[in-house]
Amino acid sequence: MSNAKVLPLLEPAGQAVVPCCPPLTERPMTADEAETAARMFKALGDPVRLRLFSAVASHEGGEACVCDISDVGVSQPTVSHHLKKLREAGLLTSERRGTWVYYRVEPSVLAAMGKLLTTATS
Amino acid sequence: MSNAKVLPLLEPAGQAVVPCCPPLTERPMTADEAETAARMFKALGDPVRLRLFSAVASHEGGEACVCDISDVGVSQPTVSHHLKKLREAGLLTSERRGTWVYYRVEPSVLAAMGKLLTTATS
Repeated sequence: MSNAKVLPLLEPAGQAVVPCCPPLTERPMTADEAETAARMFKALGDPVRLRLFSAVASHEGGEACVCDISDVGVSQPTVSHHLKKLREAGLLTSERRGTWVYYRVEPSVLAAMGKLLTTATS
Repeated sequence: MSNAKVLPLLEPAGQAVVPCCPPLTERPMTADEAETAARMFKALGDPVRLRLFSAVASHEGGEACVCDISDVGVSQPTVSHHLKKLREAGLLTSERRGTWVYYRVEPSVLAAMGKLLTTATS
């Protein structure tokens, strides 16, 4: 079962992303925008979680299960815990297939976060 | 006094950024890379801090003092505390001029973070 519906940033169509917020350099964020964006940044603000996110993002086919990414020096339950946090923040989607849950990076969310960090040229 | 020297990501020249890490989608991050990058993401992982960062980043001339950005609903000491955290994470530089400390976003660090979040097309 896909949990794509929990992602707040997505248009149904793949490319037509409506990011939560303008570039940070464009104008001061509103409180609501900051809440949404801070949740995503916070999810990446832990070294183990960031390594796991990178492991999923760079894995063959753009997806990975816990069984694929157990080499970051923490236990499998800890890996699962961090992946759940990333999913809750909207950075990963998950899908159960047989025994394993497969995680996939949501490219449009990544792009929206990247856009936040672009320097305005206006 | 500038504290630009504490920034770990900068080449002396403005444009020649050596970002800490490759795009997250390129390969799994090493533990050291994840430590560095997670520190920056964590600094942006708080809504108030993110609003302040955005307020500085979007302020006229690309810099602001505490006196300029007191409208996020927290006390001035709290603002100062958060700005210090952002400075310690290498996201802002500061310079005292007279009574006030002025904060400025480090564009190359912002660019390096943005690059982390780009989706690899290789």
